[in-house]
Amino acid sequence: MDSDTPMDAPNRSAPVARDALTTETNRRVFLRRASALTLAIPGLGAALTACRSEEPAHHEHARGGGTAPQPAATHDSVRVHNPDSKLDTALHQEGRAPSAVAPAGTPVAPFARFDPALPPLSTGRAIDVHFHARHVPIQISDDTVVAGWTFDGNIPGPIVHCRVGDTVHFTLTNEMDVPHSMDFHAARINPKVAFRSTAKGESVSYDFTPRYAGAFLYHCGTSPVLMHLGSGMYGAIVVSPREALPRAREFVLVHSEFYLGAPVNGVRPFDYGRMLSELPDVVTFNGRPNQYSQEPFRVNTGERVRFWVVNAGPTLSCAFHVVGQQFDTVYLGAPPSSAIHGIQTFAVAAGGGMAFELLADIPGEFPFVNHEFGHGQKGATGFMVVGS
Amino acid sequence: MDSDTPMDAPNRSAPVARDALTTETNRRVFLRRASALTLAIPGLGAALTACRSEEPAHHEHARGGGTAPQPAATHDSVRVHNPDSKLDTALHQEGRAPSAVAPAGTPVAPFARFDPALPPLSTGRAIDVHFHARHVPIQISDDTVVAGWTFDGNIPGPIVHCRVGDTVHFTLTNEMDVPHSMDFHAARINPKVAFRSTAKGESVSYDFTPRYAGAFLYHCGTSPVLMHLGSGMYGAIVVSPREALPRAREFVLVHSEFYLGAPVNGVRPFDYGRMLSELPDVVTFNGRPNQYSQEPFRVNTGERVRFWVVNAGPTLSCAFHVVGQQFDTVYLGAPPSSAIHGIQTFAVAAGGGMAFELLADIPGEFPFVNHEFGHGQKGATGFMVVGS
Amino acid sequence: MDSDTPMDAPNRSAPVARDALTTETNRRVFLRRASALTLAIPGLGAALTACRSEEPAHHEHARGGGTAPQPAATHDSVRVHNPDSKLDTALHQEGRAPSAVAPAGTPVAPFARFDPALPPLSTGRAIDVHFHARHVPIQISDDTVVAGWTFDGNIPGPIVHCRVGDTVHFTLTNEMDVPHSMDFHAARINPKVAFRSTAKGESVSYDFTPRYAGAFLYHCGTSPVLMHLGSGMYGAIVVSPREALPRAREFVLVHSEFYLGAPVNGVRPFDYGRMLSELPDVVTFNGRPNQYSQEPFRVNTGERVRFWVVNAGPTLSCAFHVVGQQFDTVYLGAPPSSAIHGIQTFAVAAGGGMAFELLADIPGEFPFVNHEFGHGQKGATGFMVVGS
Repeated sequence: MDSDTPMDAPNRSAPVARDALTTETNRRVFLRRASALTLAIPGLGAALTACRSEEPAHHEHARGGGTAPQPAATHDSVRVHNPDSKLDTALHQEGRAPSAVAPAGTPVAPFARFDPALPPLSTGRAIDVHFHARHVPIQISDDTVVAGWTFDGNIPGPIVHCRVGDTVHFTLTNEMDVPHSMDFHAARINPKVAFRSTAKGESVSYDFTPRYAGAFLYHCGTSPVLMHLGSGMYGAIVVSPREALPRAREFVLVHSEFYLGAPVNGVRPFDYGRMLSELPDVVTFNGRPNQYSQEPFRVNTGERVRFWVVNAGPTLSCAFHVVGQQFDTVYLGAPPSSAIHGIQTFAVAAGGGMAFELLADIPGEFPFVNHEFGHGQKGATGFMVVGS
Repeated sequence: MDSDTPMDAPNRSAPVARDALTTETNRRVFLRRASALTLAIPGLGAALTACRSEEPAHHEHARGGGTAPQPAATHDSVRVHNPDSKLDTALHQEGRAPSAVAPAGTPVAPFARFDPALPPLSTGRAIDVHFHARHVPIQISDDTVVAGWTFDGNIPGPIVHCRVGDTVHFTLTNEMDVPHSMDFHAARINPKVAFRSTAKGESVSYDFTPRYAGAFLYHCGTSPVLMHLGSGMYGAIVVSPREALPRAREFVLVHSEFYLGAPVNGVRPFDYGRMLSELPDVVTFNGRPNQYSQEPFRVNTGERVRFWVVNAGPTLSCAFHVVGQQFDTVYLGAPPSSAIHGIQTFAVAAGGGMAFELLADIPGEFPFVNHEFGHGQKGATGFMVVGS
Repeated sequence: MDSDTPMDAPNRSAPVARDALTTETNRRVFLRRASALTLAIPGLGAALTACRSEEPAHHEHARGGGTAPQPAATHDSVRVHNPDSKLDTALHQEGRAPSAVAPAGTPVAPFARFDPALPPLSTGRAIDVHFHARHVPIQISDDTVVAGWTFDGNIPGPIVHCRVGDTVHFTLTNEMDVPHSMDFHAARINPKVAFRSTAKGESVSYDFTPRYAGAFLYHCGTSPVLMHLGSGMYGAIVVSPREALPRAREFVLVHSEFYLGAPVNGVRPFDYGRMLSELPDVVTFNGRPNQYSQEPFRVNTGERVRFWVVNAGPTLSCAFHVVGQQFDTVYLGAPPSSAIHGIQTFAVAAGGGMAFELLADIPGEFPFVNHEFGHGQKGATGFMVVGS
């Protein structure tokens, strides 16, 4: 058992571990391992294709001091998969920062606008959701293809929609060499079991019944979470309350930032070292910079509009704002509770979600942005067109 | 028509554009343009004086990776002005980061404390507000003059005060070579028309009637917004509710950060590349570092004090706190709704505003700060003196 | 009188200072001093042991432009202590960034888990709290010892627990060469007097009576606050309401980030220049990275759990989240007011505090994290084990 992870599970077998952990030696071993990962940065497991940059990496640009991540010599020894997602070590190797690259020859998914419409509810009280973890290089703009780690081939993954009290039957099948898992923020469940990692060719299934309405993040929770989450493995589940909210046109926006390395065969890997430096290349709503500037949302004059905003991060906040409009209601928690009124801008934290409502009573073209403009200027903008 | 902007308007003529946008060719052209701006950084248009740094720029200090902004060769071709502020290209030129410099010989505005008092309301139901976009180098501290892009010669611009339901008749006259526009967060209006850019010597006018009370940002919304907003073109409009809030001494604080380049003829330009690097030189309340440490707010013991805090950003949040005091009420939304109670510190997001109230029942000297001290230490501090 | 501080008190003797401050000369002197500190970075006073790095400092990694802090030649002239904590100059010296190092030979405190349990209330209506400011090198992980500036030898300092309306009799005794002070966010009091600095071998005492319930930060408020706060001088005071909240297992989490320099005799100093660069090495709950991964919180199935989360910062926010769980209640302000419901993640600003409640009705192992994963991955993770 190898446990060099910063989000290490406390034990697998409670009584044994409790004793073991009381020994000084064991504690120090644990801490050395945790520290090595946290401070030195994990290396790249054998499961990943070696990184062959087309240009030198610019790691001197990264923020940070003596402990900033440094690329290291290749060392691709195979690591043992551990089903506890917090103990997984596939990406852990001292002295080398991992980056997500796609296996050579993986077909590129062409640019496609991500449909922001909230999907309709099922008529039943249960829904089946089956996702597949897949390597997919995705064209996110005219000059950028990213080496996506995806749920079902897209970044973000599919939008899930259900109601409070419905049952979600979920299955994740892993088609990638690296182990993955699924953490639904809408689920109240033992994560040690439900959110466990699954190896290539295998699946993990669990059921959950959302207790609260809201816009919730889902994401891969396998260690190091920053790497899995930051490489594209996230999406939104919207849980509607059982008593319907006011009738509205409903859209889903997943805000996230991309930290990219130099292209490898024309595809830019997600770069863990740069994730830790916190200065992204691109910031998006629904995975493509400025995609809704080209093909805006369109609503009718007089309609109520509800934005379910989920912030996948992995790190930055999203100060959501619609130019020329004001939100009559923002739900800080589960609708219809936790409402505040008359809002120009409110921040959704990384890992959080809120619902923003306005009345589209004025025709026109209304940009929506992350008003933290140092981030928003990198692509977190779009347009809502209100027709006459 | 040139549309290389990350916050591009979706179309000008909806039916035509809807067709055009469905063609792959058009989409790719758009995305290449958007991407060029977002990822490469726009250049400097002919309208701006060329930057002659007195010392070499330290761009190697900037955070970021392969796509970080780089200064490039001068290339001052004239760009066509576009009245749609989101389509304006005056500052857009590939390969060069713009910086705001004042025309040679522009007189420097000497240091002057910004009066933080909320101006009185008009007795009528309408107010006229006429701003002028002007280059003004401003002395913000003993050793720093910044090349302000201003509304009416100051950073922030004048405080506007009205009530819910009043009509604001607004005019912006542009005296600068670069096009500018005005986005009032207190207005619910078609931004494509009202917030359009206006060229040198011309004006734009519109009316609006605030629906919600609160402290709202106004700012230039011309593309790239980060550059215009980050160069000083912002201020606060306070909208009081029609039924008066509890009687109080009312102050307005506009929080903002300054990202500056090396001096040009003794004046430090605002630097777009550094705005994207997100590490400011100076952080202020009302445009001067620590100005209210020298000349504090003064209130009487027993008075209620209301701080209308607007965060102009452009990027960082403001965790507002008064040392030695606690807010009995913070309005997260439009007063008197959306109140929370018994608060030490609450964050106002960039682009947002909130009202913070306390009872000044204890005599003394009370510092107020952005308690995110990595930012606050750069000048976002001041003092309120409560007299006996 | 020397007043080169960015958080300068407005005056000591109001009438005199008011006159003096009206002269242009005086204002310019003040501003030059304030500016020198803010923009150039204060130097290191004689009170601190000179920094002898075992490896070269990597200041080229720091974010920022031309005004970024730079280490400078040693210049250890003695500075005069000023009892007004905002005017203290012990650390102020132009051209050199201070770092917190321990006097040679100071014994290292070995690693010890910080007990997160909320201490029981006193039965009386008053409590005595006596802290000592001490240099203590602390082993925070297997490979890292930090040169702590501490209250009573630990980072964070001791947890204080009282009720609304109780009286806290507080004394700080300073055992360090550098002056220190104490700012309780739970106190409403004249900070100029109560939060004044005290010199080595001396003490400062004051009483306060909390008006609001909540989780409040306490910290050293001596200038520059970023340096004192960022070097370990902080902790939590929890104020329970007089009418008890629902019965719960109560834990206290103080979130903070560490900005460290290269080791000096095996001990890493806190580095002011890196604090201003805002990219931490380590982010913790209760002062040790991942300590509750090794020895988790343990609660019984069916218990209500209340996390009192205080964010010491000094700069970053904490997006608090429990994996596999949801908060039924988050108190944004003083409990039982200001509650929102059905929350996955909510951000606590630096300098703020909130209470997060959940019902531990599901057995399992639940990680808790700062879901801003660029920060959280650096150690702000732990586990709560819910027993069957």
